This record gives sequence, structure tokens and C-alpha cells, in this order.
Amino acid sequence: ATTFRASEHQHIRYNPLQDEWVLVSAHRMKRPWQGQVEPPLLMTVPRHDPHNPLCPGATRANGEVNPYYDGTFLFDNDFPALQPDAPNPGPSDHPLFQAEAARGVCKVMCFHPWSDVTLPLMSVPEIRTVVDAWASVTEELGARYPWVQIFENKGAMMGCSNPHPHCQVWASSFLPDIAQREERSQRAYQSQHGEPLLMEYGRQELLRKERLVLTSEHWLVLVPFWAVWPFQTLLLPRRHVRRLPELTPAERDDLASIMKKLLTKYDNLFETSFPYSMGWHGAPTGSEAEANWDHWQLHAHYYPPLLRSATVRKFMVGYEMLAQAQRDLTPEQVRFQSTLGPWVLLLFPIF
Amino acid sequence: ATTFRASEHQHIRYNPLQDEWVLVSAHRMKRPWQGQVEPPLLMTVPRHDPHNPLCPGATRANGEVNPYYDGTFLFDNDFPALQPDAPNPGPSDHPLFQAEAARGVCKVMCFHPWSDVTLPLMSVPEIRTVVDAWASVTEELGARYPWVQIFENKGAMMGCSNPHPHCQVWASSFLPDIAQREERSQRAYQSQHGEPLLMEYGRQELLRKERLVLTSEHWLVLVPFWAVWPFQTLLLPRRHVRRLPELTPAERDDLASIMKKLLTKYDNLFETSFPYSMGWHGAPTGSEAEANWDHWQLHAHYYPPLLRSATVRKFMVGYEMLAQAQRDLTPEQVRFQSTLGPWVLLLFPIF
Ligand SMILES: O=P(O)(O)O[C@H]1O[C@H](CO)[C@@H](O)[C@H](O)[C@H]1O
Ligand SMILES: O=P(O)(O)O[C@H]1O[C@H](CO)[C@@H](O)[C@H](O)[C@H]1O
Repeated sequence: ATTFRASEHQHIRYNPLQDEWVLVSAHRMKRPWQGQVEPPLLMTVPRHDPHNPLCPGATRANGEVNPYYDGTFLFDNDFPALQPDAPNPGPSDHPLFQAEAARGVCKVMCFHPWSDVTLPLMSVPEIRTVVDAWASVTEELGARYPWVQIFENKGAMMGCSNPHPHCQVWASSFLPDIAQREERSQRAYQSQHGEPLLMEYGRQELLRKERLVLTSEHWLVLVPFWAVWPFQTLLLPRRHVRRLPELTPAERDDLASIMKKLLTKYDNLFETSFPYSMGWHGAPTGSEAEANWDHWQLHAHYYPPLLRSATVRKFMVGYEMLAQAQRDLTPEQVRFQSTLGPWVLLLFPIF
Repeated sequence: ATTFRASEHQHIRYNPLQDEWVLVSAHRMKRPWQGQVEPPLLMTVPRHDPHNPLCPGATRANGEVNPYYDGTFLFDNDFPALQPDAPNPGPSDHPLFQAEAARGVCKVMCFHPWSDVTLPLMSVPEIRTVVDAWASVTEELGARYPWVQIFENKGAMMGCSNPHPHCQVWASSFLPDIAQREERSQRAYQSQHGEPLLMEYGRQELLRKERLVLTSEHWLVLVPFWAVWPFQTLLLPRRHVRRLPELTPAERDDLASIMKKLLTKYDNLFETSFPYSMGWHGAPTGSEAEANWDHWQLHAHYYPPLLRSATVRKFMVGYEMLAQAQRDLTPEQVRFQSTLGPWVLLLFPIF
């Protein structure tokens, strides 16, 4: 019988955090690609554009004028998917037709006054102010809502319609689907094994050293064993931390620094401003915030779409939408170059 | 208090088939779009290209030469994600690191000898031969594997790298994630309500008439109450049918005809060759095929990515990847034009 080798033999892997399976078919990387390539990156973003609603001093869709902010800037999304006062759809008349109330707020957070930077091009102290802003918005909205989803869509490929560096914050009156899955899995793991799932997972990855991307005093970044996207990573604090506001000043500084390193690695990988969606998951908030959420460990997911180059992405389509996620290289095969590379210097000579 | 109106007030809806929630925020359609637009459709596909590995008479990557087929043509994928003989990864050494064996086959099915047609441009008898080929491949692979996933990725936007009309068939030794979810939900519904979930659902939609797109003697097409993609549809037989091979000749003819109507409506919607991923779900097969699968109802899902026009798609990104699916118009607001439109005649004058 042939010996199993993950890089040669397809197999399925279990994601214990989100209770899902992924099909890993590493030999597929050999197949040629003649399909759609992504439009080349728009290279020249003006540092300031008075018509860009995210810029300091610009007028937004609702007529409000942005202040001349010089750090981060948080404001209400002018086209929010969640509003605070939507009425209740009322009781369902049939088990197959169930609708429920959804209330919330959507905010936008600019990371920097300049449009021509991205997080990896910002300084560590500048990124640190973003970390602080994430912690305070979690506190502010978490006082009223059980879930505060901070996420960044970076790059046109990820549906980001504005190059100005920013993220979004959607807080909701309900626990979203993926939050529910992570809640269920982490609770079950804790009650079965007596410790948080992601604490044990982080410890194992530090021991196994097969999927680590970066480690620092307070954080680790790894490609999870069950990663779906080719260059997906998980960012974890070493200490047991349930939510962003609990991070100490030292952990925040260190987070800013490891984020800069990770995102620079991403940019260097295909010599492009690397697109991704990322977001933070922490213990639920709102009126139940004081309950026991010790099974939760704070973490961020990075989901980048690229597969082979700056213009060839992984399509999560037919089989993935109808059957199961599928990836074309093993998490152990993922290799990043060094942290500093020519890309940053070449394209952004001002840095 | 304001009266709830689905088209104005965001709410969440439950998908009882896949046990998931979707956030419906119809008012979001008002927001402007300045983001990425899709590259325009490549209009001139040659009818025959000897270098296209899907064409009759062409040589494929593995050196095999395609026959001069004149109907459908089924062959083994030259770069399969699933192979019949992958060894077993062996027992897991930790509950957070679980891998299991995955075996299977991947096939490609050409729908027609010409590269410049799509299903809606084929004649009803030609589509009927595709239906028959779907039924036989389900029988053939279903004899050995518990799940046979037929799916079509149509259009470059859906990662389809070859314009020649074709679909794929991936059969696996395991029940994929989404199959497992549908299995669980349908089984639970049957045991609680004494009839198949999708039989009752189809009946309800016929009564409510709010989301129907097409009905025929043997089939219905509707936008499900819990649709995630803007123009997502569900295609259902009226009779209780568990798997494709069980379809009668009359049901197959009628399926070919309703598919042509549905896909023409899709093409007409934004006057483009409408991209989508679609696939069939039927009761599991393989060695357990003879077990009781009466809770299963055969169906096809259509997942098209477009939102506003031929070049503006819905991005399922940050919030959707990290929290929950979100849609920007209600399923009840979806409107299709008539079945025959200028688009087909204009662009493909030969028809
Ligand atoms: O048609 P291909 O080249 O096999 O591949 C396409 O469909 C597959 C199944 O949905 C996906 O895994 C690939 O990402 C996509 O590019
Ligand atoms: O950044 P925007 O324009 O609000 O919107 C973007 O992110 C949202 C949240 O992930 C998605 O629902 C949209 O499809 C996407 O275009």
C-alpha cells in the first residue's frame, strides 16, 4: 500500500472551530490556468481626493462633512445593512417560512487620513491607534449589541469600492451564523476538555511548528490545519483573552507590529497590494456580556482570495458552493518570503 | 409602531434546508456602486477550435484524443481533485487535527459539440440529452460512491476557464458538508412532520405565489424564501423524486423545456450570457442507496453572482465570510422579464 502524503494524496480535514470539512487536493496545483485573470492593480491612488467620501474634509452622501482627522475616524455607514429601529416581522405562520427581527448599526472606520496607504505601509504606532479604535468600538457597540463584527474588505477583488484604508463595523441584535457555530464548538470543547479550544490549538501549533507564519511575545499567526483559502491565516493572542478591549498596552503594541509583519509578507508574496477579507471574533457582548464566556478565545481570520499570482485567484464556485470547500495546496505547503521585500520599497518610494 | 415591510426593513430569514440564516437588507439597493466592474463578456467564441481540449477531435492534456462526438461527451477530468485510490491519512493523534480519507472521481461532461452555444441556446431535444446524460452518470458513479455532485460553473466570473458548454461531476467516498446539512434537515423534517421538507415547501410556494418564477406540468422554479444570491433559484419536481435516474421520460422532456425557459430569462435579465454555478442534489447513493431516503426530494440550486447589471456583481466578502450571508433585495422583489427577449436573437443571429 502507498504511504499517505498530504501533499500528494487528497483527503478531507475537519475545522473544529466552525464545524466544517474541507477537501484538500494538493496535486491540483499542477493544472494549467486559462481562465479569468483579475484586472491589474490600480497603482495611482491620490493621497487626498476631496470627492472621496472617506477623505478628511470631504462631504459624504448624507451631506455631512468629515473632520480633518489625523488618526482614525469612525462614522455611521451612509448605506447601512443594519439600522437600529427596524420593526419585527412578527410571528411566522409556517416552520419553513421563518423570519426574525434584525437591528443594529453599521459603521465605517478610516485607518489613516491618506488614501494611498494600507495597513502594512502604516507605521507601528499608527497601526496601534487602529487597534485602540477597534477596542473602543467593540466596547461602545458591545454595550448595546450581542455581536460586534469588525471586518476589512481590502482590494477591489474583495468588493471594496474605495481604496482609502478603512474597515467596517456591523453590530447586530442577533448572533450571526458563523458566530453561532464558533460559540457552539468552543463551548462544547471547553465542557469536554476543560480548556478553551483555541488555547489548546495555539499550543499544539507552537509544538508542531508545521504551519506557523509568525510568532511574537504575545501573538501567533498560523495557517490553520483546516484552512480553506490558499493563504488563509489565523491570528491568536498567546494569553487567554476573550475580547479586544481586554488587550493590555503591551499586547496592543505587539499586535500592531505582528500585523505589519503579516501584511507585509502578504504583499511580498505576489508583489501586489494583497487583497483579503479579515475580521475579529471575540466573545459575545451585549446584555449577556457578564455571563461565562471563558470558552472563547479572541482571534482574527484572514481570508485572501489569491492562489497563484497577483492576477490568478481561487474561485470558490460550483463544488464549493454546492458540496464542500476545496483547496489546491496543503496548509503545510504555504510559504511566505521574508518580512521586508522589494515590493513595498519599489512601489511606494515615499516609504 | 411602524408596520413591518420586508422591502424596507432589514430582517433575518432561516434556510431550513441548509440550517443557515441570511440577513435581508433590501434598502441597501439604493447605495451607489463605485467598485470593481467585471470585464466585458468575450463575445466571439469560435464554434470549433482544435486547441480547445473540450472540442470534438481535440487532443487533451493527457494525450487522449476526443471522439467526434455529436451529442454530450463524458470523460475523466485530466486534473481531478478526487482520485479513486488515495491512501488513508491514518488515525488522528489529536481531536483538533482530524483528517480522513477521500476517494472519488472527477468527470467533465460536454453538453454539445459546439463551443459557441450555452444551454439556453440549445434546442429542447438537445437539452434533453444532457438530462439523460446526468441521469446515467448519477447511476454509473452512484453505484460506487455515496455522493455524486453534478455542477456547472458558467462564465469566467464563476471560475470557468473554458467557454465550451460543459459541466463537471465529482463523485466522492464521503458525504460533502452541504449534503450532510441537507440530509440532516430533511431527515428531521420528515420525522417531525411526516412528509418531505421540499414537497411541503413546493406546495406552499405554489399557494403563496410570491416567489414563483416558472411552473410547468412537472416542475417549478422559485426564488427561495431564504435565497442568498440576488437571483438565486430552486428547481423542483412536483412529484416526489429522490434522484435524477427516477425521472420519467415526460419529466425529462419537461425539465429540458423549463431549463431553457429559466436560463433564457437569466440571459435576458441583464442582456448577457448569465453566469452562475448550479448543481443537483438528490438522495445519497452508493452501498446505502437502498436505505430509506424518502425524506429526500431531488432539486437543483442556481447561484448567479450578478446584482445590478452584467458587470456589477454581489460580493460575498467580509461580513458574509465572517458573520452571515447578506442580500440586498428581498426574494419577493426579484423580477424576471419574459422568456424570449432581444438578447438571444441579437447576439446569436444564427438562432
Ligand atoms: O473548472 P475547474 O478548472 O476544475 O475549477 C473550477 O471549479 C472547481 C470546482 O468548483 C473549483 O475548485 C475551482 O476553484 C474552479 O476554478
Ligand atoms: O463595502 P460595502 O460597499 O458596504 O460592501 C461590501 O461589503 C459588504 C459586507 O461584507 C458586502 O455585503 C457587499 O457585497 C460588499 O460589496
